[in-house]
Amino acid sequence: MSQTSEHTLKIAHQAFEQFTHGLATGEWQGFLDMLTEDFTFWFPMGKFHGLNEGKDRANEFFQYVSASFKGGLSLTLDRFTSNETTVVFEFRDQGILLEQPYKNRVAVSFDVRGDKICSYREYFGSDGKSY
Amino acid sequence: MSQTSEHTLKIAHQAFEQFTHGLATGEWQGFLDMLTEDFTFWFPMGKFHGLNEGKDRANEFFQYVSASFKGGLSLTLDRFTSNETTVVFEFRDQGILLEQPYKNRVAVSFDVRGDKICSYREYFGSDGKSY
Repeated sequence: MSQTSEHTLKIAHQAFEQFTHGLATGEWQGFLDMLTEDFTFWFPMGKFHGLNEGKDRANEFFQYVSASFKGGLSLTLDRFTSNETTVVFEFRDQGILLEQPYKNRVAVSFDVRGDKICSYREYFGSDGKSY
Repeated sequence: MSQTSEHTLKIAHQAFEQFTHGLATGEWQGFLDMLTEDFTFWFPMGKFHGLNEGKDRANEFFQYVSASFKGGLSLTLDRFTSNETTVVFEFRDQGILLEQPYKNRVAVSFDVRGDKICSYREYFGSDGKSY
């Protein structure tokens, strides 16, 4: 594996750890600190469906997620794949969404630039009710 | 990149080419020939939601997909990531589903064993109506 790929993996894993922490606790500052100023993300559905641009929009989204999952979301990482710029994490998550049990299978694809994440894309593998 | 990773990438790309061909034309034999006998796949929604086991089930699914998208689905590959056993393809697709325009962003994660695909997981990045 090239040094570039190793660096990309290292940064993406740090970001994924902060992402996991944010989903579990509602504390997002660590993840936000790892995003570039021109950060963008794609989300599959709902109020944030499609392309979202900027760190302020990201902050708004993560506050919305943590307000929706008041007890937090817990993640189980199944695998990751990578290339020189991008790392995809496949995981399962579970929590309580608006008083109903929530479960999903998810893939998030983080793009790394320098020591930060400049964009990610989120994909859903199930329906929010089961794995 | 190790020889194992290179082999995995090569097989996954051959399979993805057949997958693309199947979606475009309804001709699935080339893709089915690349699946192990104990092949499994996960699908996010509908009649085939969750875990599906066996090549017969896979054949049933692909016939169903091609019957639903009579004019075929065309794919645009955006990127791929990999490790020694798995390759994730991120792409956009479009076609006509039951007489309505269909568009989605998709990630499929192919697991390679030997010269074949032993499982895959499919994830949706949009709602079937827009990218």
